[in-house]
Amino acid sequence: MPNEKPKAVVLLSGGLDSATTLYMARRDGYTLHALSFRYGQRHSHELACAARVAQAASVTQHVVLDIDLRKFGGSALTADLAVPKHRSAAAMAGGIPVTYVPARNTIFLSLALAWAESLGAADIFIGVNALDYSGYPDCRPEFIAAFERLANLATKVGVEGRLRLRIHAPLIGMTKAEIIRTGRDLGVDYSLTSSCYDPAPDGRACGACDACQLRAKGFAEVGRRDPAGPPAPDEG
Amino acid sequence: MPNEKPKAVVLLSGGLDSATTLYMARRDGYTLHALSFRYGQRHSHELACAARVAQAASVTQHVVLDIDLRKFGGSALTADLAVPKHRSAAAMAGGIPVTYVPARNTIFLSLALAWAESLGAADIFIGVNALDYSGYPDCRPEFIAAFERLANLATKVGVEGRLRLRIHAPLIGMTKAEIIRTGRDLGVDYSLTSSCYDPAPDGRACGACDACQLRAKGFAEVGRRDPAGPPAPDEG
Repeated sequence: MPNEKPKAVVLLSGGLDSATTLYMARRDGYTLHALSFRYGQRHSHELACAARVAQAASVTQHVVLDIDLRKFGGSALTADLAVPKHRSAAAMAGGIPVTYVPARNTIFLSLALAWAESLGAADIFIGVNALDYSGYPDCRPEFIAAFERLANLATKVGVEGRLRLRIHAPLIGMTKAEIIRTGRDLGVDYSLTSSCYDPAPDGRACGACDACQLRAKGFAEVGRRDPAGPPAPDEG
Repeated sequence: MPNEKPKAVVLLSGGLDSATTLYMARRDGYTLHALSFRYGQRHSHELACAARVAQAASVTQHVVLDIDLRKFGGSALTADLAVPKHRSAAAMAGGIPVTYVPARNTIFLSLALAWAESLGAADIFIGVNALDYSGYPDCRPEFIAAFERLANLATKVGVEGRLRLRIHAPLIGMTKAEIIRTGRDLGVDYSLTSSCYDPAPDGRACGACDACQLRAKGFAEVGRRDPAGPPAPDEG
């Protein structure tokens, strides 16, 4: 009898959040179609992490798509602006950071939607999180709801009523510590992941950007050492 | 005094509709930032047309972005399926055709949105048309309205209230004949455009696909010969 599990497209950056999301989709009974992007990000090390996570999770397929967003300019992740370091929690909560990439999640979800429709998949997973890090407009529940509504108007399968497309953002209301606990229970190997906005050429995390600080805080709260974190001071 | 015209991002395929849309944006007083895609379409001849139209309209900038949608499969425009020929008007009106590309306009608008935000442009133009050719779900007014709503939730400029993003689809309710008349009044040179889904290697239109038939009907209704159409039978 053929495999009758439903298919899901899962956006996979190679970071902690998307790796956890991938394992949550697996837990929920989907076959996994992982999608990553080479979009001109400075930290392309994350793509190597995405490939390792995809392999560890035994995905059915992992597609890496090239989109050169550098042609549009406008973000520290794709241009030559400095990534902010050692910001306080108050500073992080104080507005949309320079690391914002214009319309990034809209672009990523659009491409996931195209693939989902081609596959006959109704379900798309994205690891956005609104609680720990509320600065990005396209990480909020109202954005996800608006995209889901659009998806069902934009596609043949949606308009014909053959599929009810759903955008799953299971991390959206979780703290980083809750995400890490959930992932550990599901067997995520966080040593394979990378969250840093400004890693060293060998992929080592900087430990000081917003993403590194949020990740470190999450591991501290669950009482664990981050297996992919920067070396502790006494490891010098 | 610096140029104070507002900027617009205009999706430009190189076809009749998008060329007309570009000239309508110019008429409305915008500086033009034209955006085209190399997405694995069989008819890449249209990109040469897009470049010629952009030059003729004196755009400020023309960006061609590569996205290999063939990685997702699922359309006659990007895969090896046959393009339907000599279909009747009734057949064309009878459902979503095989030439549908999953989520194409969602993807194109998402990327236009990213560029618009980077430029500080509030206005995006797309040459979709719901009247002559109602088969595509992402050519309908409700799709455009849903995308505009999403755009203002998805972006920093929208959320901060610095720009009210608008998606302009000025052709959406026009017949092909009305589009051609409008374009002629604005000086569009239709000999530079290509609408065919299945052109010959030298770019010559097939004359038989849905797009060719709709275009021919439009020129017939305005009593003009299509300067980029297939040769008339007596030119044989």
